[in-house]
Amino acid sequence: MPGIAYLGPEGTFTEAALRALAAIGMIPSADSGAEALTPVATDSTPAALEAVRAGAVQFACVPIENSIDGPVLPTLDSLAEGDPLQIYAELTLDVSFTIAVRPGLAAADVRTVAAFPVAAAQVKKWLSANLPNTELVPSNSNAAAAQDVAAGRADAAVSTALATERYGLDTLASGIVDEPNARTRFVLVGCPGPPPPRTGADRTSVVLRLDNKPGALVGAMNELAIRDIDLTGIESRPTRTELGTYKFYLDFIGHIDDDSVAEAMRALYRRCADVRYLGSWPTGDVVGALPPSFDDAAAWLQRLREGKP
Amino acid sequence: MPGIAYLGPEGTFTEAALRALAAIGMIPSADSGAEALTPVATDSTPAALEAVRAGAVQFACVPIENSIDGPVLPTLDSLAEGDPLQIYAELTLDVSFTIAVRPGLAAADVRTVAAFPVAAAQVKKWLSANLPNTELVPSNSNAAAAQDVAAGRADAAVSTALATERYGLDTLASGIVDEPNARTRFVLVGCPGPPPPRTGADRTSVVLRLDNKPGALVGAMNELAIRDIDLTGIESRPTRTELGTYKFYLDFIGHIDDDSVAEAMRALYRRCADVRYLGSWPTGDVVGALPPSFDDAAAWLQRLREGKP
Amino acid sequence: MPGIAYLGPEGTFTEAALRALAAIGMIPSADSGAEALTPVATDSTPAALEAVRAGAVQFACVPIENSIDGPVLPTLDSLAEGDPLQIYAELTLDVSFTIAVRPGLAAADVRTVAAFPVAAAQVKKWLSANLPNTELVPSNSNAAAAQDVAAGRADAAVSTALATERYGLDTLASGIVDEPNARTRFVLVGCPGPPPPRTGADRTSVVLRLDNKPGALVGAMNELAIRDIDLTGIESRPTRTELGTYKFYLDFIGHIDDDSVAEAMRALYRRCADVRYLGSWPTGDVVGALPPSFDDAAAWLQRLREGKP
Amino acid sequence: MPGIAYLGPEGTFTEAALRALAAIGMIPSADSGAEALTPVATDSTPAALEAVRAGAVQFACVPIENSIDGPVLPTLDSLAEGDPLQIYAELTLDVSFTIAVRPGLAAADVRTVAAFPVAAAQVKKWLSANLPNTELVPSNSNAAAAQDVAAGRADAAVSTALATERYGLDTLASGIVDEPNARTRFVLVGCPGPPPPRTGADRTSVVLRLDNKPGALVGAMNELAIRDIDLTGIESRPTRTELGTYKFYLDFIGHIDDDSVAEAMRALYRRCADVRYLGSWPTGDVVGALPPSFDDAAAWLQRLREGKP
Repeated sequence: MPGIAYLGPEGTFTEAALRALAAIGMIPSADSGAEALTPVATDSTPAALEAVRAGAVQFACVPIENSIDGPVLPTLDSLAEGDPLQIYAELTLDVSFTIAVRPGLAAADVRTVAAFPVAAAQVKKWLSANLPNTELVPSNSNAAAAQDVAAGRADAAVSTALATERYGLDTLASGIVDEPNARTRFVLVGCPGPPPPRTGADRTSVVLRLDNKPGALVGAMNELAIRDIDLTGIESRPTRTELGTYKFYLDFIGHIDDDSVAEAMRALYRRCADVRYLGSWPTGDVVGALPPSFDDAAAWLQRLREGKP
Repeated sequence: MPGIAYLGPEGTFTEAALRALAAIGMIPSADSGAEALTPVATDSTPAALEAVRAGAVQFACVPIENSIDGPVLPTLDSLAEGDPLQIYAELTLDVSFTIAVRPGLAAADVRTVAAFPVAAAQVKKWLSANLPNTELVPSNSNAAAAQDVAAGRADAAVSTALATERYGLDTLASGIVDEPNARTRFVLVGCPGPPPPRTGADRTSVVLRLDNKPGALVGAMNELAIRDIDLTGIESRPTRTELGTYKFYLDFIGHIDDDSVAEAMRALYRRCADVRYLGSWPTGDVVGALPPSFDDAAAWLQRLREGKP
Repeated sequence: MPGIAYLGPEGTFTEAALRALAAIGMIPSADSGAEALTPVATDSTPAALEAVRAGAVQFACVPIENSIDGPVLPTLDSLAEGDPLQIYAELTLDVSFTIAVRPGLAAADVRTVAAFPVAAAQVKKWLSANLPNTELVPSNSNAAAAQDVAAGRADAAVSTALATERYGLDTLASGIVDEPNARTRFVLVGCPGPPPPRTGADRTSVVLRLDNKPGALVGAMNELAIRDIDLTGIESRPTRTELGTYKFYLDFIGHIDDDSVAEAMRALYRRCADVRYLGSWPTGDVVGALPPSFDDAAAWLQRLREGKP
Repeated sequence: MPGIAYLGPEGTFTEAALRALAAIGMIPSADSGAEALTPVATDSTPAALEAVRAGAVQFACVPIENSIDGPVLPTLDSLAEGDPLQIYAELTLDVSFTIAVRPGLAAADVRTVAAFPVAAAQVKKWLSANLPNTELVPSNSNAAAAQDVAAGRADAAVSTALATERYGLDTLASGIVDEPNARTRFVLVGCPGPPPPRTGADRTSVVLRLDNKPGALVGAMNELAIRDIDLTGIESRPTRTELGTYKFYLDFIGHIDDDSVAEAMRALYRRCADVRYLGSWPTGDVVGALPPSFDDAAAWLQRLREGKP
């Protein structure tokens, strides 16, 4: 049970995210003397989340958003259905590849390059400029590409720093990606529990299910807007149960312990057919407008109640 | 200072309202052994309210709404400007007149009828049917009409039951009014203090001053509507200070100690250039939809905070 | 039928408004060679409007708003019920009184002052400063006060310039009123017809009847706000037919031939249980923000339809 | 120029969609005697759209939404930036695979299975149940997997019906997919032009760019909601130019020639920093609530203008 599931195999970006989260102390432990959580590779993101639900691991580290492809909907859909789960932390990694080679091999001697096809598409320009006249050999994952080099099935691999090191390969180039600024955001997911304390730079995420009537979504979003809560993401998804009905993923700035966020959450609860809380957690940087303080208004109301306007 | 101001002279509907409020215990006293408040007649409604502000009396009883003519704007305007005042109780009286005659005089012998012109207009049909061929003699108030009869200046008066009794006249007819169901609502006004306790059948009233931009009023009213608070009255009034700017009188069902009303009030405070609280007080009957309870939503939020969704 | 009804008797402010409207050509005539409309006094504002409905007169001139007492609800209520009527013009008069005396009488010799009680209240300060030690004699109207002087029942009258002249009295003082800037707005009402042409400085007025559900009023007002139409007045009035239901009087800037106003009107029609159109008419001065032009948006849409974005 | 670009290589699902669109006459031609459009394979979806912009082809057929992964954001992002493009038609295909084998080979003799890794993940359960004890060989695309079998690099392929036929392979099984009901929606994209005529079952799509202020998105969505227009999809995407600013993809039911849709479009134009119209096109089936007719309201307004309420 003191494990942490991630999309394997070993050496993927997700494992790198997991290690980065641990390094900066974002992976909570029951007590300070807790033993380290053992990474457990799974073969899909939903499988990682199911392992949390089943109690096989304490946490899962999964990608939730990508700057090129947008929200990772299989992750969101898996969070939205089944037993409740909760997000406790997030980490954003620049997406860039390491070009790994068999030890000692020079670039000029590379004839074949192993790559996961999705990764190959992201470094196509670099390869044609830097490793022209090479043949592309498909691999099953970024980590498998490095393994393919180690096993002699290719000269070079489009892979990760982690896999390069693990399979004892040399680094020909690092930080490689055609489209600059590509980033993936990963989240740490566990069973429901008290959210981490408010830091002032937090994100809250919910899944709304709404009655199928005109204006229902606008009404729900209005509950955030009138309280000046900064929506940072919205995605609609059809529900599978009824034609023409939708669920909505909403991200906004603030913590459930901000008065304005708490008031908005209560309003969503009253208004929506269902609200699933996905957590409040620190983001490190503030990514938009902070939720307003309601302290002045509360003090004014208190004065009215005491007859001292 | 233990007085209560009202629109005089003695014998008006306002004095009747004041006595009715006292009779049903709606006029609060500082302590249970308090001496009775002495009625003090003033010559206008604003003057009655000024007497409260000046500390000359403890309360004023003033008309605030009439089923024929609508809100009594001089009352509302006087509440909205100057030092804050607060409403503590209300009472609605059917508006109907007593036809008073000199003792012993029969209807057939009435030749002249004294009446305040506004009242004369409200009993015109009754007079032409029941006292035809009489001459109308204008009086300065409903009470003055009875006094005119007592002084021999007229045979009959369109007046109140209170004045009829006070001037020792006979009652020729009572409950007289052409338009049935005419009613006037009176309120008891004092200096700001803790509002009377929530009874479950309460009214709250505010004056809003809004920035002069499109949608400002809709935005403010929306703060009530999204919380399902039942607006029972709205009146716009130009402000005198700036062209095209308005203040708004809003009445709604509920008490400042209802969670939903409290939340709406805090929202109005944040949104409006100024909110003047005119009080929360019992209405006896519920006059619309009760403000919703927010208890379930608050309990749900508490469970989220404890990690037990 | 070529008459115009007004609240009599002769010499009232309403007759003055009627004459001012005629003087500036605001009273439309079927053709330019039309004979002048004969003023017809009625004994109430609703009676003046009923005379239009009955075909007894072509128009009525009635007060609709007063800067001290607010909207004249008997006028609005009469417009809102029964057969439709329509407003064609408006005129705002400063409310101030003429102090009329018997010819040749000096101020020092005035002992009694006849006054309609409502008018007496509005010149109370002036009288105590300028005609102290005089006795107030109630009259049935502002015009009747002058008549009372002519008939020898009083030395002076709080009256109008029109009545002073009509009854052959001298003017002791004019432009008298305690509260400066008191004004009354009068409107010219006829049977429904094409509204007067758009001038760019127009007002439109409607009566809304709404289903009794939360947010219905906000929803209707939102149809104006989202189109940046400047609401210049709103009054709620209980309907008499059903407890807790209301009708709303709304005034806004613009003409039914403004695109934005037309679009808002169609939206109100779709949304409300009933919309009664009270007319679009020129105001002379612009009294707020003009309705926006929708021309650019319409041209853009046309380009899309033609495939030329 | 009479070409139609698609995501290659030959034999992909996108080519299948393109052929299906042509088969049902959804690919418009300048005149009925037009020659058929030549399919032109590109190596990415954005490249297909760029070929349209460059005038190299007349249309592109690209995936826009997937029932598992949601909107295809590279397609949407490419539509939202650069010179305007327009959608003219759509087609939804069930996503399922054909298992192709070397002619004559029995299932029991299959030792290696070529598959694009993304496809392999979607048929994992089927393979372990039906082709256990086989080794997975990665391919560069679904079509390439069939080619790998034809070239002798694998015994079987997870591929498409089109590629199976093209490379002369046998079909071991068809309609294979682990997750039932997976579907992809494809659209036909060209340069801007008059949209196809309204059919009554249409979809309209826009990209909004909003000023970065609270409530801007709610305000824009409200323009659809108050007109009872059925929003069928919304996705937020950060803009790259400014931190904390977003663009929004909105899909809704109706055609730019529906009065209600036209009115909403004009309102969005007035309200948003930028509106990019992506087209109105037939969907075949109605996928939600139809846009309301505004005919009654327009007729009512016309009657008011004519003075005949």
